[in-house]
Amino acid sequence: MKIIVIGAAGAIGQAAVAELSSRHEIVTAGRSSGDIRVDLADDASIEAMYAETGPVEAVICAAGEVSFGRLAEMTGEKYLYSMKNKVLTQINLVLKGLSVVSDGGSFTLTSGILDRDPVRGGSGAATTNGALGGFVKAAAIDMPRGLRINVVSPGLLEVSADRYGAIFPGHDPVSSRRVGLAYAKCVEGGLTGQVVTVD
Amino acid sequence: MKIIVIGAAGAIGQAAVAELSSRHEIVTAGRSSGDIRVDLADDASIEAMYAETGPVEAVICAAGEVSFGRLAEMTGEKYLYSMKNKVLTQINLVLKGLSVVSDGGSFTLTSGILDRDPVRGGSGAATTNGALGGFVKAAAIDMPRGLRINVVSPGLLEVSADRYGAIFPGHDPVSSRRVGLAYAKCVEGGLTGQVVTVD
Repeated sequence: MKIIVIGAAGAIGQAAVAELSSRHEIVTAGRSSGDIRVDLADDASIEAMYAETGPVEAVICAAGEVSFGRLAEMTGEKYLYSMKNKVLTQINLVLKGLSVVSDGGSFTLTSGILDRDPVRGGSGAATTNGALGGFVKAAAIDMPRGLRINVVSPGLLEVSADRYGAIFPGHDPVSSRRVGLAYAKCVEGGLTGQVVTVD
Repeated sequence: MKIIVIGAAGAIGQAAVAELSSRHEIVTAGRSSGDIRVDLADDASIEAMYAETGPVEAVICAAGEVSFGRLAEMTGEKYLYSMKNKVLTQINLVLKGLSVVSDGGSFTLTSGILDRDPVRGGSGAATTNGALGGFVKAAAIDMPRGLRINVVSPGLLEVSADRYGAIFPGHDPVSSRRVGLAYAKCVEGGLTGQVVTVD
């Protein structure tokens, strides 16, 4: 298959690429690196990316940004930022890709563990993760041409534990190998409308 | 208890008021009716509402708007509209209310069934419902002074079935009595961080 991986330079994107690259043609994309530069906040940039790749069998998105902060420090603007930069970005990638992904192909989005195993200060992330879970569940029954859609929801990655572990007390980091397998399950398997957790 | 019910004129708000009004002092609020007029999209309007009520023991929100449409007809703007008018509105109500609700008091928000039992055209609603579930799960462990937060997620109400039933094929409508009980469970019980479903 020809597969676009957006956010391929991040820890999660790298895990997906490592698992899939030996069996598939991977086109990497990202805001500041990759075969194609794309800004998911810009519809025209998404359209330009798809114009450059042409038809693909699968789209993986492992890009997104959220605001962290204790509830008392949060503002509506911080939640809006999180929803725009982790949820709407991925939804727009799907909407613009509906005519680009081949019959029976798939979209695989990325959320995270914090809506089922929360941490203090993580309500912005939890809100976006829950939103993505709801989106794929409903979008799956609205897809044309047998297209599938799922979201991978990984825990803290082992490779990210030094950097982020302090805000995830008691969380058991997951291996990049298992995260990569979750993307393989979504792309190569038959699931649709699922939140594929890696805990 | 003194309880604010926002969206008290709607079918869900009426169900909450019917269950709770015999035991509590209810202050109704809404955009176009109720004891207090409030626009949840306007921070100043929310602050004015809380200034008028003074301290309360519970806040119930049964107000929200989403865009419906098949995926191929949806746009990023429609998802953003849904997130602003069903998620951010309720989050702002919580953020502004953190200093108003008494020690041990509660917030009870409202989502809906479409993220767990989707219908075609319902991905905007499903996205917002999932977001609210993630939000309350994480916000619950970030709350000051023993405040609690939950979200009631009702199915299609019997009283709304004539109007909306056609877009919910096969859904078994729920009684207003059971919906009202869910709000009582959240307000009078001890739950926090829960999605209280009424199916």
